Amino acid sequence: MNKNSSNTMALAPNTSNKRETVCIFGTGDFGRALGHKMIQSGYPVVYGSRSTQISNLIPKDAEVLGHTEAAQKAAIIIIAIQRQHYNFLTPLAEVLRGKVLVDISNNLKLNQYPESNAEYLAQLLPGSKVVKAFNTVSAWALQSGTLDASRQVFVCGDDVEAKQMVMNIVRALGLTPLDKGSLLAAQEIENYPLQLFPMWRFPIFLSLGLTAFFFFYCVALDIIYTYIYENKNVSFFIAITIPNRVCPVMALILLALVYLPGIFAAIIQLYRGTKYRRFPDWLDKWMLCRKQLGLIALAFASLHVVFTLVTPMRAFASWRAGKGIISQALNNKTEPLNHTNAWLSDSYLALGILGYFLFVLLGITSLPSVSNNVNWREFRFVQSKLGYLALIFCTAHTLVYGGKWFLSPSAYKWYLPNIYILSLIVPCAVLVVKFVLIFPCVDKPLTQIRQGWERNPKYSK
Amino acid sequence: MNKNSSNTMALAPNTSNKRETVCIFGTGDFGRALGHKMIQSGYPVVYGSRSTQISNLIPKDAEVLGHTEAAQKAAIIIIAIQRQHYNFLTPLAEVLRGKVLVDISNNLKLNQYPESNAEYLAQLLPGSKVVKAFNTVSAWALQSGTLDASRQVFVCGDDVEAKQMVMNIVRALGLTPLDKGSLLAAQEIENYPLQLFPMWRFPIFLSLGLTAFFFFYCVALDIIYTYIYENKNVSFFIAITIPNRVCPVMALILLALVYLPGIFAAIIQLYRGTKYRRFPDWLDKWMLCRKQLGLIALAFASLHVVFTLVTPMRAFASWRAGKGIISQALNNKTEPLNHTNAWLSDSYLALGILGYFLFVLLGITSLPSVSNNVNWREFRFVQSKLGYLALIFCTAHTLVYGGKWFLSPSAYKWYLPNIYILSLIVPCAVLVVKFVLIFPCVDKPLTQIRQGWERNPKYSK
Amino acid sequence: MNKNSSNTMALAPNTSNKRETVCIFGTGDFGRALGHKMIQSGYPVVYGSRSTQISNLIPKDAEVLGHTEAAQKAAIIIIAIQRQHYNFLTPLAEVLRGKVLVDISNNLKLNQYPESNAEYLAQLLPGSKVVKAFNTVSAWALQSGTLDASRQVFVCGDDVEAKQMVMNIVRALGLTPLDKGSLLAAQEIENYPLQLFPMWRFPIFLSLGLTAFFFFYCVALDIIYTYIYENKNVSFFIAITIPNRVCPVMALILLALVYLPGIFAAIIQLYRGTKYRRFPDWLDKWMLCRKQLGLIALAFASLHVVFTLVTPMRAFASWRAGKGIISQALNNKTEPLNHTNAWLSDSYLALGILGYFLFVLLGITSLPSVSNNVNWREFRFVQSKLGYLALIFCTAHTLVYGGKWFLSPSAYKWYLPNIYILSLIVPCAVLVVKFVLIFPCVDKPLTQIRQGWERNPKYSK
Repeated sequence: MNKNSSNTMALAPNTSNKRETVCIFGTGDFGRALGHKMIQSGYPVVYGSRSTQISNLIPKDAEVLGHTEAAQKAAIIIIAIQRQHYNFLTPLAEVLRGKVLVDISNNLKLNQYPESNAEYLAQLLPGSKVVKAFNTVSAWALQSGTLDASRQVFVCGDDVEAKQMVMNIVRALGLTPLDKGSLLAAQEIENYPLQLFPMWRFPIFLSLGLTAFFFFYCVALDIIYTYIYENKNVSFFIAITIPNRVCPVMALILLALVYLPGIFAAIIQLYRGTKYRRFPDWLDKWMLCRKQLGLIALAFASLHVVFTLVTPMRAFASWRAGKGIISQALNNKTEPLNHTNAWLSDSYLALGILGYFLFVLLGITSLPSVSNNVNWREFRFVQSKLGYLALIFCTAHTLVYGGKWFLSPSAYKWYLPNIYILSLIVPCAVLVVKFVLIFPCVDKPLTQIRQGWERNPKYSK
Repeated sequence: MNKNSSNTMALAPNTSNKRETVCIFGTGDFGRALGHKMIQSGYPVVYGSRSTQISNLIPKDAEVLGHTEAAQKAAIIIIAIQRQHYNFLTPLAEVLRGKVLVDISNNLKLNQYPESNAEYLAQLLPGSKVVKAFNTVSAWALQSGTLDASRQVFVCGDDVEAKQMVMNIVRALGLTPLDKGSLLAAQEIENYPLQLFPMWRFPIFLSLGLTAFFFFYCVALDIIYTYIYENKNVSFFIAITIPNRVCPVMALILLALVYLPGIFAAIIQLYRGTKYRRFPDWLDKWMLCRKQLGLIALAFASLHVVFTLVTPMRAFASWRAGKGIISQALNNKTEPLNHTNAWLSDSYLALGILGYFLFVLLGITSLPSVSNNVNWREFRFVQSKLGYLALIFCTAHTLVYGGKWFLSPSAYKWYLPNIYILSLIVPCAVLVVKFVLIFPCVDKPLTQIRQGWERNPKYSK
Repeated sequence: MNKNSSNTMALAPNTSNKRETVCIFGTGDFGRALGHKMIQSGYPVVYGSRSTQISNLIPKDAEVLGHTEAAQKAAIIIIAIQRQHYNFLTPLAEVLRGKVLVDISNNLKLNQYPESNAEYLAQLLPGSKVVKAFNTVSAWALQSGTLDASRQVFVCGDDVEAKQMVMNIVRALGLTPLDKGSLLAAQEIENYPLQLFPMWRFPIFLSLGLTAFFFFYCVALDIIYTYIYENKNVSFFIAITIPNRVCPVMALILLALVYLPGIFAAIIQLYRGTKYRRFPDWLDKWMLCRKQLGLIALAFASLHVVFTLVTPMRAFASWRAGKGIISQALNNKTEPLNHTNAWLSDSYLALGILGYFLFVLLGITSLPSVSNNVNWREFRFVQSKLGYLALIFCTAHTLVYGGKWFLSPSAYKWYLPNIYILSLIVPCAVLVVKFVLIFPCVDKPLTQIRQGWERNPKYSK
């Protein structure tokens, strides 16, 4: 009776002051690290091991027993052994009946086995309550106390009570449990630590592809063309000049690609006259990686800023500036200030600075701790209003910078447009369509649709 | 009996493995999104709807029933309908008696109704336990899984047990519940998603006002004065030169305004001889928006840095540099290096860099995730000690930069002082008073007062 | 019976809607602030005080009684008095028997008393359940609602149930409780708010020492040597030129010091043939402060970037540039562009920019909120792969910049090497050894060792 009540009230444990004993099967790295941490947090720990010789690596205050004796001492047993050895547990099924088994295993590859390790364990020992936990925590971080990476521990399991008991241990170790639902989630949890930035993959590949294209486009037009037709070797442009052409182009295009799916969504909703139909799959996926696209655009913009600011330090720049001054001096005259030039140079710099400033604000707001502290309306204000303002400033910056060359034939070497002309296509299209969308005659039905109104109500039934 | 115990032990639910069924009234956007997420997290979901035809938008695994049948199936009913339709619930009062009703509604305006929606619902159905929750979460974010904005779910309600049940669901969905107390807090929670940076409003309006003033002050003194008296058109100064004068002035003044209320507070405490009396209201409010003032100051300082660094790229700057060099070349002589100038230029740049560096450190420390990881003493060390050091460096930077012009009559066009002179008033006052306050004869009584000593103890009784 | 059950089910409290009454002993600053906040959160508060006169500073809705009467009204008593007055509680032992006493006291110095205040309280009143909590929260932040610094409340205590009751209050106040285990942890919790960046101490002292050394080394070689042998006064180098030599050197050395302990660890593991033996103490400590070393390196790198970018604004730089141009103009000739120079200058700038870019990425990833959102594999990918890439870029940047002077005798004033030569020793050593370690013949046994294989298995038994 008493034992039962201590089981059913996981967060309000038995009245004795002691924490419940925890058993750990396996004395490998993670088993030892976890045991160490648990003893620090006040849990009596008993190891279940084939050899009961006490190794000097096992925490001092832990007991080491055979598997059966160890399992009998605790209600929770942590299975710190690899999946391929799970079948040695089947003879212990009777001892483990009713116990909470914590599966902490990880695989080496994504979807290595048809079912998750935790589900496999539950199949082997149907009488036990299997909970998946701790697999995302690193043994080293646990032992050294420097949990630089995540403190989150994903927990899942079919038995709610067993899960609560495990989540209490997680909390007691100073970690944050996150309930992911039933044992079906184990597959996802086991795949999690094997993932390498899944949300970033598409944006990064897209950026790399576009960057490579623009880089070689520039190499062809700036270096090879100049070498062939003007017989000048400017191969050193590869280091700074060309990266500083590619970076702003990439930043502008990617920033426009952040706002393009929103435009598509609005058009689709207007066309269908309802918001109650799913967007096409590609649009859904695109909308989910807007944050990543925006951050990569910010990285390119930052590189562009630094590449631009180091310009005066380049040997080429000081040589060119010197050449201009010397030719004036040798001609014995001082050219007056060209006011149009002064206006153009100052205003494109100012527009770029303001655009970049807003862009950095957007980046700061997308830091998880900042976005956790703003409400949905504030987040949308920053990401939508300020984001469009940043796009407008950056597009204007490019237009003012390159405007005078649009009609100049020297901008069309080999009949190909200069890349800043290419870079303007997407942002200008986004801005023009967005401008149309905020006209009252278009905005009003769109707002109605977004509030649930349907032009053709049959769709929703 | 059994049902009762499953109700009272919210975090240690009934021994069956299943999560409890949740009923959702309303099949609108948010109702569907929430149901979808709940099914993912292992909750059986039943919708209560007028039309029990199964729409293809409702999650597949959900049941759709009439309101009464649906309500009978669950202990928790989520009211995903708008406030104006709440009164259709009154006939269901008997069915809903003792159930937990979760009010998730939002209004369109701040304080739209005299009482909060949740309190209105509780009045309509006095036999039910109303809990306010989920209103700050966006349907789209919930459905798509990209909770970029806040994961926090504010929960309030009069029935502690009902609140616990709702908070458990919140946790199971991967969100963070935040208990805000009794149903009285519903008004605040309903207003929260309608707010747009309330703490930032005053600092932003103050900054905009000051910026406009200084901008036109500069336009008058630099552009109009030059045009009238020297007949030179330097209108292009509007793009970079003048913003780069206004930004540092704003940064310095706002940074000083961060530390001014602390000075006032110390003087008031010294004068009163006790800390046990409230500060005037304006001082309290000022102290609460110091962080915002500081961050806006940092934004201005950052703009100043970038505006300064692009200087060599300006057509005006290269024209002016060229003119100086050409005039030397035409006169056939090379001016020797002016050592005083070299010292002044290098030291004001170095002071500015160090001041900005400390300023950025302050900014990083005020990121929520960083300030959560430092203790109170460390936070105060950074914000107070390093903050004053930043103020000293920035003030010295301005003094060295403008020092030589203080006594020059050309700095007083139209008998008005140059703005860098105006900008120095507040920071110098703050630094001088702070310097007086750290003298032992002033610091000692102040420290005693802050530790609870009273010059005139009658005040505290 | 009913009272007992409300005690044992801390998170699922009694069915009445009211929160339990909390008693606060002491009407000082913190006692009042806490009471104020508790009343806001719906707790009835009663103060225990010697004088029961109601001061106008005590929250309006609170009751003030004598200690005995107040204690009888509540199950939880917050002891908001200083340790030196704890012994006045001994006569109340009978009233306090079985109650939960919350010790919120702080000391003025680290380890001021042999035992923690909470343990001392538990010794004085063995019949009560002592819980340590709230000592890391500031009274001012609590009252004003601006919890800029940490929201975390460390809680420890021997009675699990009492601890749960206190943690519920913490959660209800909008703070995050963190269970630190038994009352033994009280010493650590009481020391926490007195700490001032303990993990930063060694890295900061190391950086200050190295910075001072390199600064005076540069002053000697650049200023004093130039003054003695060339009779030129370049004392203004102290402001920018020399800091801009010391900063990159420090950044490079500290970045290499981040990766050096990993190299040592690999060599030790290879030599021992096992990972199951502890590293020497100095290596463990070094590995724990790698993050701090890296962030200080990033600060130096950022200073180097800004110091470099302001170069064109320096009076010295424009004087030197002018001199070069004028001498060309007076000689009536224009020097052609030196292509080798253009390549070198552009490529060292580009390498520096890319290295710094990766460095900043590393810095952003080490923000707590970002590292909480990446899994262990992603964190290691960024910190290890991208980190080494940053080190390679930065080392190459230095090598290209200084390469041409390596063999020049003018780089060895007073037979001492220039500091950029000194700065290359550690990073080059790290990169060379790392390069050896990734050879398959070395990497394979190392990987095996890290997966648990032992060359000489006797060690582990």
